[in-house]
Amino acid sequence: MAKKPWDGRFSQKTDKQVETFTSSIDVDKRLYAVDIEGSIAHCKTLAAASVITKTESSKLIEGLRKIKKEMDSGLFQFTEAHEDIHMYIEDRLFQIIGDVAHKLHTGRSRNDQVVLDVRMYLREEITAILQLLFNLRQTLVDLADTYIDVMMPGYTHLQRAQPILFSHYLMAYFEMFSRDSRRFAECRNRTNVMPLGSAALAGTTYPINREYTATLLGFPDVSKNSIDAVADRDFIIEFHACAGICMMHLSRISEELIVWSSSEFEYIAMSDSFATGSSIMPQKKNPDVPELVRGKTGRVFGDLVAILTTMKSLPLAYNRDMQEDKKPLFETIDTLKMCLDIYVRMLPKIKIHKQRMMQETSRGYLNATDFADYLTSKGKPFREAHSIAGRVVKYALAKQKEITELSMDELKSFSPLIHTDVVSFLTPHAMINRRRSLGGTSTRRVKDAIKKGKNSLSKERMKPRTKHR
Amino acid sequence: MAKKPWDGRFSQKTDKQVETFTSSIDVDKRLYAVDIEGSIAHCKTLAAASVITKTESSKLIEGLRKIKKEMDSGLFQFTEAHEDIHMYIEDRLFQIIGDVAHKLHTGRSRNDQVVLDVRMYLREEITAILQLLFNLRQTLVDLADTYIDVMMPGYTHLQRAQPILFSHYLMAYFEMFSRDSRRFAECRNRTNVMPLGSAALAGTTYPINREYTATLLGFPDVSKNSIDAVADRDFIIEFHACAGICMMHLSRISEELIVWSSSEFEYIAMSDSFATGSSIMPQKKNPDVPELVRGKTGRVFGDLVAILTTMKSLPLAYNRDMQEDKKPLFETIDTLKMCLDIYVRMLPKIKIHKQRMMQETSRGYLNATDFADYLTSKGKPFREAHSIAGRVVKYALAKQKEITELSMDELKSFSPLIHTDVVSFLTPHAMINRRRSLGGTSTRRVKDAIKKGKNSLSKERMKPRTKHR
Amino acid sequence: MAKKPWDGRFSQKTDKQVETFTSSIDVDKRLYAVDIEGSIAHCKTLAAASVITKTESSKLIEGLRKIKKEMDSGLFQFTEAHEDIHMYIEDRLFQIIGDVAHKLHTGRSRNDQVVLDVRMYLREEITAILQLLFNLRQTLVDLADTYIDVMMPGYTHLQRAQPILFSHYLMAYFEMFSRDSRRFAECRNRTNVMPLGSAALAGTTYPINREYTATLLGFPDVSKNSIDAVADRDFIIEFHACAGICMMHLSRISEELIVWSSSEFEYIAMSDSFATGSSIMPQKKNPDVPELVRGKTGRVFGDLVAILTTMKSLPLAYNRDMQEDKKPLFETIDTLKMCLDIYVRMLPKIKIHKQRMMQETSRGYLNATDFADYLTSKGKPFREAHSIAGRVVKYALAKQKEITELSMDELKSFSPLIHTDVVSFLTPHAMINRRRSLGGTSTRRVKDAIKKGKNSLSKERMKPRTKHR
Amino acid sequence: MAKKPWDGRFSQKTDKQVETFTSSIDVDKRLYAVDIEGSIAHCKTLAAASVITKTESSKLIEGLRKIKKEMDSGLFQFTEAHEDIHMYIEDRLFQIIGDVAHKLHTGRSRNDQVVLDVRMYLREEITAILQLLFNLRQTLVDLADTYIDVMMPGYTHLQRAQPILFSHYLMAYFEMFSRDSRRFAECRNRTNVMPLGSAALAGTTYPINREYTATLLGFPDVSKNSIDAVADRDFIIEFHACAGICMMHLSRISEELIVWSSSEFEYIAMSDSFATGSSIMPQKKNPDVPELVRGKTGRVFGDLVAILTTMKSLPLAYNRDMQEDKKPLFETIDTLKMCLDIYVRMLPKIKIHKQRMMQETSRGYLNATDFADYLTSKGKPFREAHSIAGRVVKYALAKQKEITELSMDELKSFSPLIHTDVVSFLTPHAMINRRRSLGGTSTRRVKDAIKKGKNSLSKERMKPRTKHR
Repeated sequence: MAKKPWDGRFSQKTDKQVETFTSSIDVDKRLYAVDIEGSIAHCKTLAAASVITKTESSKLIEGLRKIKKEMDSGLFQFTEAHEDIHMYIEDRLFQIIGDVAHKLHTGRSRNDQVVLDVRMYLREEITAILQLLFNLRQTLVDLADTYIDVMMPGYTHLQRAQPILFSHYLMAYFEMFSRDSRRFAECRNRTNVMPLGSAALAGTTYPINREYTATLLGFPDVSKNSIDAVADRDFIIEFHACAGICMMHLSRISEELIVWSSSEFEYIAMSDSFATGSSIMPQKKNPDVPELVRGKTGRVFGDLVAILTTMKSLPLAYNRDMQEDKKPLFETIDTLKMCLDIYVRMLPKIKIHKQRMMQETSRGYLNATDFADYLTSKGKPFREAHSIAGRVVKYALAKQKEITELSMDELKSFSPLIHTDVVSFLTPHAMINRRRSLGGTSTRRVKDAIKKGKNSLSKERMKPRTKHR
Repeated sequence: MAKKPWDGRFSQKTDKQVETFTSSIDVDKRLYAVDIEGSIAHCKTLAAASVITKTESSKLIEGLRKIKKEMDSGLFQFTEAHEDIHMYIEDRLFQIIGDVAHKLHTGRSRNDQVVLDVRMYLREEITAILQLLFNLRQTLVDLADTYIDVMMPGYTHLQRAQPILFSHYLMAYFEMFSRDSRRFAECRNRTNVMPLGSAALAGTTYPINREYTATLLGFPDVSKNSIDAVADRDFIIEFHACAGICMMHLSRISEELIVWSSSEFEYIAMSDSFATGSSIMPQKKNPDVPELVRGKTGRVFGDLVAILTTMKSLPLAYNRDMQEDKKPLFETIDTLKMCLDIYVRMLPKIKIHKQRMMQETSRGYLNATDFADYLTSKGKPFREAHSIAGRVVKYALAKQKEITELSMDELKSFSPLIHTDVVSFLTPHAMINRRRSLGGTSTRRVKDAIKKGKNSLSKERMKPRTKHR
Repeated sequence: MAKKPWDGRFSQKTDKQVETFTSSIDVDKRLYAVDIEGSIAHCKTLAAASVITKTESSKLIEGLRKIKKEMDSGLFQFTEAHEDIHMYIEDRLFQIIGDVAHKLHTGRSRNDQVVLDVRMYLREEITAILQLLFNLRQTLVDLADTYIDVMMPGYTHLQRAQPILFSHYLMAYFEMFSRDSRRFAECRNRTNVMPLGSAALAGTTYPINREYTATLLGFPDVSKNSIDAVADRDFIIEFHACAGICMMHLSRISEELIVWSSSEFEYIAMSDSFATGSSIMPQKKNPDVPELVRGKTGRVFGDLVAILTTMKSLPLAYNRDMQEDKKPLFETIDTLKMCLDIYVRMLPKIKIHKQRMMQETSRGYLNATDFADYLTSKGKPFREAHSIAGRVVKYALAKQKEITELSMDELKSFSPLIHTDVVSFLTPHAMINRRRSLGGTSTRRVKDAIKKGKNSLSKERMKPRTKHR
Repeated sequence: MAKKPWDGRFSQKTDKQVETFTSSIDVDKRLYAVDIEGSIAHCKTLAAASVITKTESSKLIEGLRKIKKEMDSGLFQFTEAHEDIHMYIEDRLFQIIGDVAHKLHTGRSRNDQVVLDVRMYLREEITAILQLLFNLRQTLVDLADTYIDVMMPGYTHLQRAQPILFSHYLMAYFEMFSRDSRRFAECRNRTNVMPLGSAALAGTTYPINREYTATLLGFPDVSKNSIDAVADRDFIIEFHACAGICMMHLSRISEELIVWSSSEFEYIAMSDSFATGSSIMPQKKNPDVPELVRGKTGRVFGDLVAILTTMKSLPLAYNRDMQEDKKPLFETIDTLKMCLDIYVRMLPKIKIHKQRMMQETSRGYLNATDFADYLTSKGKPFREAHSIAGRVVKYALAKQKEITELSMDELKSFSPLIHTDVVSFLTPHAMINRRRSLGGTSTRRVKDAIKKGKNSLSKERMKPRTKHR
């Protein structure tokens, strides 16, 4: 059993079970690198304020760097007696450099230390997620470019609605993931705030320069209230909310890939390398990857609920409940990154059945809206035109024909306004290209959108990426 | 039974039960004003594009304004046969102006119409919430100013930790609600995007100028992809997440007010006008308002889960499931506004027991940290000083004394470094004012924070508030 | 402003806004009938214990019955000054019968009164839900009977897997809703416990016989600990969990009805009377009812989260937070009942495209498993047979043929064990009827299941239904 | 890369990343023992039906037992190429016994195999949880016995309400955990159903006797519909709901222990061995264990949301999404067991400050209700008596006295009905023992409750515990 940092006041040893129960090292060990980086900056700040000497500072930093190397290479061993990664590192530091190790914690508390670590860790992970979102948006825009000539039925209520370009569909997801990027970037701004120096809750008595620490660690901002600084987990909840929305988007595209892979739709085929088979049914090729992504949405929503529940009704400032913030956070980070990455890999490998998509664009009365528009263009008020079109569809359904397969006489019986020009008016190509208002599915508009998408991606790429800003 | 907008294709009437089941008018009736405002802008856009004539446009607008007046004054009656507020208004318009009413829906669909309405409605409500948050922050900063001289024990783990200024505590909440404001403002940016002209999902075939509609309605942005425009509810989920975080903050302050109102803490007393009694226990004065706010947190979290669940796995574009977005949204808006408003009213009426707060600041070993700091200042390494302080506390506890009540001999027996200057070092006043690093609880720092808070509030107030921007 | 039941101790009037904020009458008014029923039983119990006289009791009961009649016929008016339905009734009672009204509250508190009301209300609603589940199961079993000859492809991963009877599919839902029934019945047992006499939290000082009250109100059990009795909301949470699982089942069948209504699957057609059309696309017939049911699942999950969140961390006994238990409860009750009822009505009206289902049973390599089984029956180990079947499917796919469309030579090239008997082995009919282990899809097994289902339903129907037991 | 069980139909190898993404072995490895036990029963069933020979069966069983031993002793190595624990075991079996290993999977699918495993695993874990709940209830009843003479203030709204016995408070939790036990036991009944033989979804074609398998594995029931059997996860959700309610109870007692450990309440002191200190504040003794339990409630609620979300809208039968059922399940099992266990250990070690509890029972107007009752017993109607008592409290508050500290003259000025017998009427002892209706806090009633609690525990203990029934 390691010596506890609070041994002075206590008469009894910690119960063995309690050690296991309260220990978080299994979860927070992944913070070791940021913890050490933060401690080094803290040393420098202490030294700059003459709270410790330059020599002490150097010794501490040297020791910390050694521990970092040990941990990078896996040469270390945790025990549950080490309450958390912070205590492990300090204990190890004492083994390496002796008494001076005990000066490292001057002017800080685990309360501000742990939130510093989580903020440093999370801003890096958000940066990584933004990169994955960038890759996914690039993939979507590239696919939209490749398939610009592919028409397909657009759906509402999973019923065929109107013809669209497959590229227009892809660009809808481009929009969603672009919004996700903006949300994550704004969440990173609120994460990117330096809390060290808030100490336990009231601020430190040592004359340290917190802005200096912030500069050393690349933080643009410093927290403004010491109580809030150690009690606040907003940035974590906000991250979970951003992740939840992003996973919701992934669950929607996953649903569609699954539906489209069915024998009945057959719009796409998953690549063999991204599908799995059945242990019992030899013909099966299952869209496991989209299914798992859709399923993992549950975890990410659950993690959001977990942290909201945990934070509800906690009095200020720090409470031990807040230790439970890390497990859901790390799980959501891992899940989201994995899902984004697998989508970047999988999407280009999907076989698109262009022929089937195109051919189905002529079936299922996708032209009924335009048929009504045709009548409107000849002078019928919209609601009447809509009603006539409805009756024509009912008639055609009964005859098991498409509208364009009805004879001119049959059509004219519904309205004398109908003429032979109706046929060219109702080709999928004509229908798609008439939708040329901003944001519409016409080829020109979609090409514009693709171009703009590419431009915005290349601007993002060229931006000299100041780390974490 | 009202005529349905799709009667043409159908052979059977809608089942009565189904009408009730699918009708949303009970919920969406509160959108009537924005729906009419949106329709008027749509008329103008259609006229500007010569899709309808100026005369038709005028007639439509006049009719719509008349309906607005009727509804403002409550002179109207819904039936469940009116599927939703949009159909009610169009039916009523037909009754007032006849056939031309049917031209109103040209070039749009309920899919883009409904999302326009929700965006217009929500941006107004976010603006109202921002005003309430402004009022709450103002209240907090004013109270911080008023009580600048009040010291109290600061807590972690609900255990007495270190002395703080009560104002510093209040300013912690100022920080939280300021973050909430920024989050809501960013959420409003993403809400403030004009979707009309996306029609059912593929865009409209009419040559309308969507930017013109946006200008008429005060939208800085226009949606970029028609499928996404009708399928997207991100802005609603993001709003729920912002509201969830804000309610979490309110649940924390509520918890504290409840705990502080107990006979045991007795730091505050609720005003009679903000408390209720018991039907059976005559002595009770219950902190009902904070309790209800804390309890309502459940609803707001639940509403977030509701909309996330509903949106999960929906294929593009519109699905009827999405009709369920409004009930939780309206409930969360109403709940949050009510809670913020009651807090603005209640906080200044709370009686602060300054004397008790101050007197308790000298009890409970709140000076143990500073006692350790005292030893550190005399040269002890931090961890050792901490350990000595712990032993002194244990000794004092056994003697049922505070540290400063021990004799100099007793103190010296723990360390020869201890001298009489320890007494003045350990007054609450000294302890508080030593915490003068940025964000700390020293009077100077808190005064600074109050001043900055006031400045930022008055800047916000002076900003010429362009509506919705 | 009504007189408050606690006026004695307070110096200031309740703030107007606070009245609105704390009032629950809008929500709890629907408890009036059970509240009055409970009060009548309380009067009788007080009289039986001679706490009040028989005359007083009669007067109270007469007054309460009069209020019941007024409210049944809608002749009454609430104001927000009436904190809740309980106070409204007591105030009204005083208006009707004068001073003796004030004896009604002897020996009870609102804390036990409100939980009595909710328990009485909920047990009735669970009984109603059990009836709806009964109807739904009856509908399913009847449909399974009607369609016993319909074969269709069974799915896993939304990929065609093996042929099944459509009736077998229906009976899967019969199982789910039967489990739901059992869960609700057990939840009703835990709801059906009489709390009155627990008073505020410590029990009453009056010598009342609580078992007598229970008998009067038809409760089989009496709560055993007064603190727990007023602090417990388990039965509500358990109800929400049962409802959540039941809605999950409804969301699954809804998803399938939606997918099956698509042009691509075309297994079913919604009745015109249960579908709605589009305001813009004349051809659309949307499966709105299943979509809304699927969407409403979000609310029901959200309500469960709401009550769990609200109850988290509340100290014993009653806290005002718990007033927030009713809104989600009533919403979930209403939603679930509405969804179950609409399914009972809708299911029999759905048009089943038998021909299409049957014809699709011969497509998509649904016989691959049985082909492997065929090889196993000829002596191949299972995993090898599976592998051969996989290769045959790959070959057939390339030839765009089904397995049974390959020539005997082609087949034999994969294994010499294959003979002409393979054809009859692989008809859908043969495949289905070979699955005759318990619970399998063979006609005989499904007929058995239908018969058992009917038996169990008629047993439930005949059971002399002791109210609430 | 291991050979996949579906290699036949596929042309391309699985993508490396996809293997990692879809692999579940890291999570489901803990199912190995039940998986092997299930496979052995399956072998026996196949042999009994002559699907395989006795010799084959013996060989398979011997191989499986060997693997079990290997895994028990940790001598094995997973790779991510092993999709799951089932495939690992089958591969290993092939290495050990050769070709005959491939016969093990005859007549079953992973779909029914995995749900069998989870059901076997979960019923054992529920049994373990029931044992822990038993221990906790035993602890509570023992403590109630020990502290039967301790009076304390009872609270509502965290305001002092009426005097109670501390034992009565403990027995409230006894009731809650008893309800939890019943819920878990009922959930175990629905878990304890044997699904094997449902195969992929349609049942198996092999003439196996499923009831025989059930008997071998100790299942009282066999699933009745093969589609439902592989598609159903109700029992898991129900378990999460039971666990959620149980954690809610633990969060409530945790909240109270935390509040009671504060310097202000000081009703209890955590044992040094169950508390932790601060790294910076030497005086702190934090109630970390209750805080962590309270915090972990978030995870358990989140896990419930996760599985509900995942199951929402999944079409029948199996979908890969359902693989995501295990991680939250295992996490909730582990968390709940750990929390229950630590409570069993911690509760008896808590130091109860009897003196303080008792002394506080005379403060805070806890006798106001009884004072009103006193007046009622002298003939005042309840509401009037309540009002007089309220005024007396207000008067006493102003004088900073308790009611019993007022002079007889002062008291009589509020009502001439007041006499000197009021003093003995209002002792805590008298007040507590007047609450002798069933479930009340009087010593006799609490002793009764303790006795009944002990009896029911010893009946449970003596019940010959048929495993899993």
